[in-house]
Amino acid sequence: MTRPAASPAEALTSLRAAAPLTQCITNYVAMNIAANTLLAAGAAPAMVHTAEESGDFARIARAVTINIGTLSPAWAAGMLSAVQAANAVGTPWVLDPVAHFASSYRAGVTRDLLAHRPTILRGNASEILALAGGDTTARGVDAADPVMAAEPAARQLARDTGGVVAVTGTVDLVTDGTRLATIRGGSPLMPRVTALGCSLTCLMGSFAAVAAPMDAAIAALVLFAEAGERAEREAEGPGSFGWRFLDALAAVTPDDLTRTPRVTWS
Amino acid sequence: MTRPAASPAEALTSLRAAAPLTQCITNYVAMNIAANTLLAAGAAPAMVHTAEESGDFARIARAVTINIGTLSPAWAAGMLSAVQAANAVGTPWVLDPVAHFASSYRAGVTRDLLAHRPTILRGNASEILALAGGDTTARGVDAADPVMAAEPAARQLARDTGGVVAVTGTVDLVTDGTRLATIRGGSPLMPRVTALGCSLTCLMGSFAAVAAPMDAAIAALVLFAEAGERAEREAEGPGSFGWRFLDALAAVTPDDLTRTPRVTWS
Amino acid sequence: MTRPAASPAEALTSLRAAAPLTQCITNYVAMNIAANTLLAAGAAPAMVHTAEESGDFARIARAVTINIGTLSPAWAAGMLSAVQAANAVGTPWVLDPVAHFASSYRAGVTRDLLAHRPTILRGNASEILALAGGDTTARGVDAADPVMAAEPAARQLARDTGGVVAVTGTVDLVTDGTRLATIRGGSPLMPRVTALGCSLTCLMGSFAAVAAPMDAAIAALVLFAEAGERAEREAEGPGSFGWRFLDALAAVTPDDLTRTPRVTWS
Repeated sequence: MTRPAASPAEALTSLRAAAPLTQCITNYVAMNIAANTLLAAGAAPAMVHTAEESGDFARIARAVTINIGTLSPAWAAGMLSAVQAANAVGTPWVLDPVAHFASSYRAGVTRDLLAHRPTILRGNASEILALAGGDTTARGVDAADPVMAAEPAARQLARDTGGVVAVTGTVDLVTDGTRLATIRGGSPLMPRVTALGCSLTCLMGSFAAVAAPMDAAIAALVLFAEAGERAEREAEGPGSFGWRFLDALAAVTPDDLTRTPRVTWS
Repeated sequence: MTRPAASPAEALTSLRAAAPLTQCITNYVAMNIAANTLLAAGAAPAMVHTAEESGDFARIARAVTINIGTLSPAWAAGMLSAVQAANAVGTPWVLDPVAHFASSYRAGVTRDLLAHRPTILRGNASEILALAGGDTTARGVDAADPVMAAEPAARQLARDTGGVVAVTGTVDLVTDGTRLATIRGGSPLMPRVTALGCSLTCLMGSFAAVAAPMDAAIAALVLFAEAGERAEREAEGPGSFGWRFLDALAAVTPDDLTRTPRVTWS
Repeated sequence: MTRPAASPAEALTSLRAAAPLTQCITNYVAMNIAANTLLAAGAAPAMVHTAEESGDFARIARAVTINIGTLSPAWAAGMLSAVQAANAVGTPWVLDPVAHFASSYRAGVTRDLLAHRPTILRGNASEILALAGGDTTARGVDAADPVMAAEPAARQLARDTGGVVAVTGTVDLVTDGTRLATIRGGSPLMPRVTALGCSLTCLMGSFAAVAAPMDAAIAALVLFAEAGERAEREAEGPGSFGWRFLDALAAVTPDDLTRTPRVTWS
């Protein structure tokens, strides 16, 4: 099924109208905040991971998201079942290869998942550089490389997978291998709250249920940027930023997304 | 052991005096907020799930609660061990069959658990209707059916299990197959915060340690309704509702539960 | 590698300069709040647990922390791999034997871990007493014994393991078997928020990456005491305390740790 081209405002309107059931196979750290992120934005999260049912569930979900943050063999099996089922029925899916370079085990599972061609691949610059075979100075889960350094790697991965690649950081870029969009905004407090990036991955899945992949990735980034700036205005630290961000996600209207220009195409 | 009949106010007084050790085998999304819910209300949560010790622990806990939200085979085995131990020593236990109709795997585990006759069965209308063999329009974890439509199914399940059945939604109903209580109150923000329903299941367990099953289910619902209304008064969205709800759970006194009539018997 | 002696203020300065990568193998309840605690304080958390990679990751981490709260066999294997790798490369590691006396399974895993001689062992009085072979009146995850009653047990365990033992409660004590420090402060709301003790364990690991073990344990306790008092000043309950505590952890400066005398040596 082809999803329509949509501006961020149009995508948010569609998301709230559809409340798409989004199957999130994510890490233990992210589960609660990711579910609250989707509920606040207007989507319907479901955390269903075990191989005994992840494929069955992927057939009824409208999008699937995979994040390898707290990987283990049983979870990897569930991820693969879900991805195969999603592909079989044409459901979009998103891959977040958290720190895939940190161990050979993690790297191997990521290769297996990537071979199934995610609709959207989201990572920080270090993850995207390393996936494309480049050098990275990263050690753990944090990006040590600037986003723009990952542009060629992102374009290459997009062409290789036939999907969209999003590289997130101080600025974000999204490419389908041909087009390139840069998204600006957000708050320096965002990386001080754990698992917001993982939650963004899940939200990209929800948007991919209602909009074309590149537009879905952009819409999620624009909504996060807008909500992040709102939350920062009154936050006194990472603790108050966390709940203010959820309030902002729920309060932002489609019209709000049209007020600040955030997306540059090139 | 038979627990005494108790009004919600009496049950809350007993809960805070006893701080009953409540073994919660719940899903990954709910674990943190469920533990904080029990601590705020005055109970003592313990998340102990693996089959290697879940039965041992159920013998020292004063209540056990089971929630299949993020089910997998190892967890299902731990749930069954805990339930069998609880039954062997007469400890009350609560079952929350989250989206049991979403896969045949989930349905099978739910049947196995239900066969051990939960002291309290809690679900949304779609879950209760489907358990009793009725039709549901639900797809994922959200209830698509109105609470009152599940009344006959709830009564039948209560008679079949010999326990109490609670159906929660915009209004809540509790039945032991003969008596029926309806509970009103709460806030529309409650379903916008993930895992509050799962946390309610755990709290019903804590109350079931100090009060008769039907009174325990009602007390948990009345406390949630009162705390939800208080939290909503100053909340600006789902993020601020979340922490205000915990503050309210801790602040509510037994007397507060007598001020607003919430329970209707029929 | 020997880490330098450091006052709490010096240790906090070092922690924020180094942002040490801290591998936390902790329980499901604690994962999110522990990661947020480390990020707020200035460290870099990574939750990597499975035996397929936990040893590899421990070789690149600057500290490892182990908490058995929601133990299962696969996780116990991952814990042992991480601990063995940490010891092999001289990386400090911290053990938090949550409720180890609650089942024979839990007790056995704790014995295996303890035999690898943790750099820092942190527990409540009941856990430390029971580890040293003494009597405890505890039943679940809460300490039922006063901290000072555990002083002889703590000294003995420190001598047996060659490490540092921290006993936490209304007051805290830290010993290396010879020296003894008592730390005062904090808030009665801290035990009303789940997993703050587990988060403290993780933070002790981060400090142990930049300071000598006894100084690391003390620095974490002093920072928690200072942040806890700040958070309590404006908190209206456990919900608001939770996020205010994270804001306070981020706001506290090294100088702030020198203003209130909290540590008594004996």
